[in-house]
Amino acid sequence: MRAFSDRLVEAIRSKGNPCVVGLDPRIELMPDFVKAGRGDLTREAVCGILSDFHEVVLDAVAGLVPAVKPQLAFFEQYGLGGMEAFANTVRVARERGLLVIADGKRNDIASTAEAYAAAFLGDAGFQAHAMTVNPYLGRDSLTPFVEVCKRCRAGMFVLVKNSNAGSKDFQDQRLESTGRPLYEAIARMVDELGRDLVGESGYSSVGAVVGATFPEEGRAIRAIMPQAFILVPGYGAQGGSAQSAAACFDERGLGAVVSSSRGITYSFGDSGISREGYVRSVRENALRMIEDVCGAVRNHSLASP
Amino acid sequence: MRAFSDRLVEAIRSKGNPCVVGLDPRIELMPDFVKAGRGDLTREAVCGILSDFHEVVLDAVAGLVPAVKPQLAFFEQYGLGGMEAFANTVRVARERGLLVIADGKRNDIASTAEAYAAAFLGDAGFQAHAMTVNPYLGRDSLTPFVEVCKRCRAGMFVLVKNSNAGSKDFQDQRLESTGRPLYEAIARMVDELGRDLVGESGYSSVGAVVGATFPEEGRAIRAIMPQAFILVPGYGAQGGSAQSAAACFDERGLGAVVSSSRGITYSFGDSGISREGYVRSVRENALRMIEDVCGAVRNHSLASP
Repeated sequence: MRAFSDRLVEAIRSKGNPCVVGLDPRIELMPDFVKAGRGDLTREAVCGILSDFHEVVLDAVAGLVPAVKPQLAFFEQYGLGGMEAFANTVRVARERGLLVIADGKRNDIASTAEAYAAAFLGDAGFQAHAMTVNPYLGRDSLTPFVEVCKRCRAGMFVLVKNSNAGSKDFQDQRLESTGRPLYEAIARMVDELGRDLVGESGYSSVGAVVGATFPEEGRAIRAIMPQAFILVPGYGAQGGSAQSAAACFDERGLGAVVSSSRGITYSFGDSGISREGYVRSVRENALRMIEDVCGAVRNHSLASP
Repeated sequence: MRAFSDRLVEAIRSKGNPCVVGLDPRIELMPDFVKAGRGDLTREAVCGILSDFHEVVLDAVAGLVPAVKPQLAFFEQYGLGGMEAFANTVRVARERGLLVIADGKRNDIASTAEAYAAAFLGDAGFQAHAMTVNPYLGRDSLTPFVEVCKRCRAGMFVLVKNSNAGSKDFQDQRLESTGRPLYEAIARMVDELGRDLVGESGYSSVGAVVGATFPEEGRAIRAIMPQAFILVPGYGAQGGSAQSAAACFDERGLGAVVSSSRGITYSFGDSGISREGYVRSVRENALRMIEDVCGAVRNHSLASP
């Protein structure tokens, strides 16, 4: 099997865009047709609603985008029925030829970090292609994920600079040792950890998360880790523009993927919308994002030195 | 219902010790009797092994300690069967009168953080009494957990200084703004966020995680957040002594709980041990830890000014 980064590059090229559809199950925001006739929200009903909803979304976007990003928190909030739907959603996405980035922001120490990596990337676990990882516990908490990525040809995206306003509280703190923000120290570690996992495409399967809401930081981080893939959330509903997101791409117009969740799956107007109407809305939202992001990335790489 | 911190203080007083048994399911380390006759490790078999194993452990320790700490990574690594066993384990622990700290080190932004809090602390979720939370995303990623703790009378433990060697990489970095390590800035935020959740006992339900492997840091952090409860992992198998762990307690000999996992559940010698022999071993291990920790805390509070 090829490296995750190479498969991601290939999928971006074949679909012609670097857009990722986020899957955030929130029953209260879903259209009526997927909820009708389910009765009480038992474990089975929840699993059915979430699984069916995502199957509709995945069918709608499978031909359009290279990857999807299920957000684990929104599955976990529904307990066991939610986690069962997560497993179903990953399976269906894989069957549709989509890459799956499990957004769980996990981390812990030593054997516990190994267990998280096995849980989401290993053959006996949920079998996503990549996952997001929190770096606060330091280098020895990241290396178990790197090892599993190497062994399973999987990918990881380390949180470097998040899209929320509060990311300034700790991530932006300048360190006495360098005079530079904490997130740059983390970006340097991502770059270093990823050197062993650079694929034929020239990109590493050890990537980073950088919010679309911070284009200046995005440019700086891009320069620190030229081989890392950047996962860029915060586009759309969170206020990041395609232009801002484009700052995380390199001069080849590659090296990043931009994700949107609510803007694709929950922007459909009336909750009484038909199944066909909903599918059309998801596809239109995705196509609008693709056009917007591709245009901005083209301008960005044309303007790059 | 009373505040989590008050229930924790009451449980510590009634059991006469501040020890927490960590539940880290690792089938390869379990005694044979719990695995015998299960056949292949299907989802059902995994769920059965993990649930039964923990029921034995919970029955053995319910009369001895105030709380248990299931480690989510080790459940998640077994996929859906593992998560089903997690739900069973929390339920049985509650039935046995034990407080449950879900160790998942979760965090994310805004509505996603809310979803994690609902997942582990809310009535529709897994219903632990408290959970561990990662602070890297900043203040606005912590406040949704604080809100849920307030509403559900639950507790949270924010990672401040972890027990692993690599925790020095970022947590120990001195900040330009203060000349002090990052973990102190986080401890100050924990103290501030917790002021609204101080119970009748004088302790807050917003606590912190500080590894037993760093007693000096423990003392400093204790002083910064006098009302926060500290969850102290790293005792035993990870090399932290009872004396080191005691540094996280206050002059009343309270304000912290010390957890041990492998030292209690997987230190039983021969894998062919009988069920009765295993129960005896778990109780002996727990009693040895209780004596060790209580002695060290007593000496610590006697020596405190």
